[in-house]
Amino acid sequence: MIDQLVAKIQKTEAPIVVGLDPQLKFIPQQILKKAIGEQGETLEAAAQAILTFNKGIVDAVADLVPAVKPQIAMYEQFGVPGVKAFKKTVDYCHKKGLIVIGDVKRGDIGSTSGAYAAAHLGTVRIGSKTIAPFDEDFATVNPYLGSDGINPFIDVCRDHNKGIFILVKTSNPSSGEFQDRLVDGKPLYEEVGRRVSQWGAVCYGDSGYSEVGAVAGATYPEMGKALRRLMPKTFILVPGYGAQGGRGKDLVHFFNDDGLGAIINSSRGIIAAWQKDPYLDFGAEGYGDAARAAVLDMKQDIREALD
Amino acid sequence: MIDQLVAKIQKTEAPIVVGLDPQLKFIPQQILKKAIGEQGETLEAAAQAILTFNKGIVDAVADLVPAVKPQIAMYEQFGVPGVKAFKKTVDYCHKKGLIVIGDVKRGDIGSTSGAYAAAHLGTVRIGSKTIAPFDEDFATVNPYLGSDGINPFIDVCRDHNKGIFILVKTSNPSSGEFQDRLVDGKPLYEEVGRRVSQWGAVCYGDSGYSEVGAVAGATYPEMGKALRRLMPKTFILVPGYGAQGGRGKDLVHFFNDDGLGAIINSSRGIIAAWQKDPYLDFGAEGYGDAARAAVLDMKQDIREALD
Repeated sequence: MIDQLVAKIQKTEAPIVVGLDPQLKFIPQQILKKAIGEQGETLEAAAQAILTFNKGIVDAVADLVPAVKPQIAMYEQFGVPGVKAFKKTVDYCHKKGLIVIGDVKRGDIGSTSGAYAAAHLGTVRIGSKTIAPFDEDFATVNPYLGSDGINPFIDVCRDHNKGIFILVKTSNPSSGEFQDRLVDGKPLYEEVGRRVSQWGAVCYGDSGYSEVGAVAGATYPEMGKALRRLMPKTFILVPGYGAQGGRGKDLVHFFNDDGLGAIINSSRGIIAAWQKDPYLDFGAEGYGDAARAAVLDMKQDIREALD
Repeated sequence: MIDQLVAKIQKTEAPIVVGLDPQLKFIPQQILKKAIGEQGETLEAAAQAILTFNKGIVDAVADLVPAVKPQIAMYEQFGVPGVKAFKKTVDYCHKKGLIVIGDVKRGDIGSTSGAYAAAHLGTVRIGSKTIAPFDEDFATVNPYLGSDGINPFIDVCRDHNKGIFILVKTSNPSSGEFQDRLVDGKPLYEEVGRRVSQWGAVCYGDSGYSEVGAVAGATYPEMGKALRRLMPKTFILVPGYGAQGGRGKDLVHFFNDDGLGAIINSSRGIIAAWQKDPYLDFGAEGYGDAARAAVLDMKQDIREALD
């Protein structure tokens, strides 16, 4: 799957992933009102509003970017109907030709990680049938439990042509509390990065990159630089651009000299662009066009930084 | 919620939680066949079989134990219908008077952790309505992202009388890869334990224990001993008993001198007891009775160890 991602990044000339993290406050009133009108003030209404909103965003940006990253927490908060909207979002994005990175940050002991891997990237067997439950293309995974929690994901990646991104250095302000602590004189995130690189050695694609990628936040560019050197064949998913403070110039060191090796996520900065300068003129009805304009601006920002 | 848990442990005299982790191979053929007969070879059939199986277990053990711990991965692997079965399991256990620990191991950056906390322990607002999406009583949480990922859960715990158990030292073989690494001369899990204790200081119950608990595996009794000393007011959820190798005598040091402070989980050892010695005589039809017998044996094993 990493080869498909690389090919789509090259085709779109956009190392960009749009984060589909639809909080209700980002959704135009007309969509929310219609959903509540049809479903009442229910979880189903929230789920319907999310899905409608997502389709508008996806329709507006699908030709510009290689991938989307739905954050499952934003769906799970609306219960079973929300999870159903997550699945429908995955399917809709696939129909539009997009690669889907499920931002699920799962991770558990062996057999349980196996179940999560089957859920999001693999298949389950029921009687004589084989079914892919959520069927994302990539998933994000938490490393705290070590190899036992990671290997079941890697097995599924190899069997089903899928990939993962393992949390190494997250974008949030307190990520250093544990991740930056020194272990044998080196920060823990570097130790995790080294392991990610080792785990990934069993599944390189033709592109030279591994199906096992890493997450490292745009908000910590110097650490990204160190990780880039440490894991040359590891693709880095970089959150934290835009709303969290990361800028194009911060991103240069996450890329390899071939201009590849990283994909930058923006969520709020794109899907809620219609609520913010300089996109206010698009209005609520034009939220999709505002998202498109924000993607184009982000693309230019990154290209200028890389040039 | 920690006070309710303590009270129920005292009432049942069983510091035991039954892990509802229903893999299909644990489910008697008659249940699975009936579900497939009614639903075809579908995710819905797996979900129906899980729910039927769970009800049989819960009916058989509800008077013996204070709590159950459904592992959401085992439901998520059956897609949206599986997640629906998870929610129905939570509701059924509540109806039977059990405390529900959602083993979800979520954790993310601030706003996203807030969404997970709302999903599992809190409420969401849709129009003028407030709805509790999954409504477990406790959830397990991953600490890798630091305070930003934990505080939104603590806020929800305080607002809604709920609790969490944060992963400190997990029960799996490779848990030491990162958790045992030395940070300032102390293993990382101790550092996490210290933080858990600090996080928990804002929400002690009348029992003297905090709404913020810890997870530490029965498979590492010496480490449990160290953590017990380090976090005297932290309740410890202890997985790894039974199938993973932990035994009653390993558990003593997870408890405080008051005989409280820990709750021991067994999953396979109870729900799949009917497939194993010495419970084979119960047969597939008697899987609930086998589970009940296994709980009684576990209770005795722990009581003997504590006495």
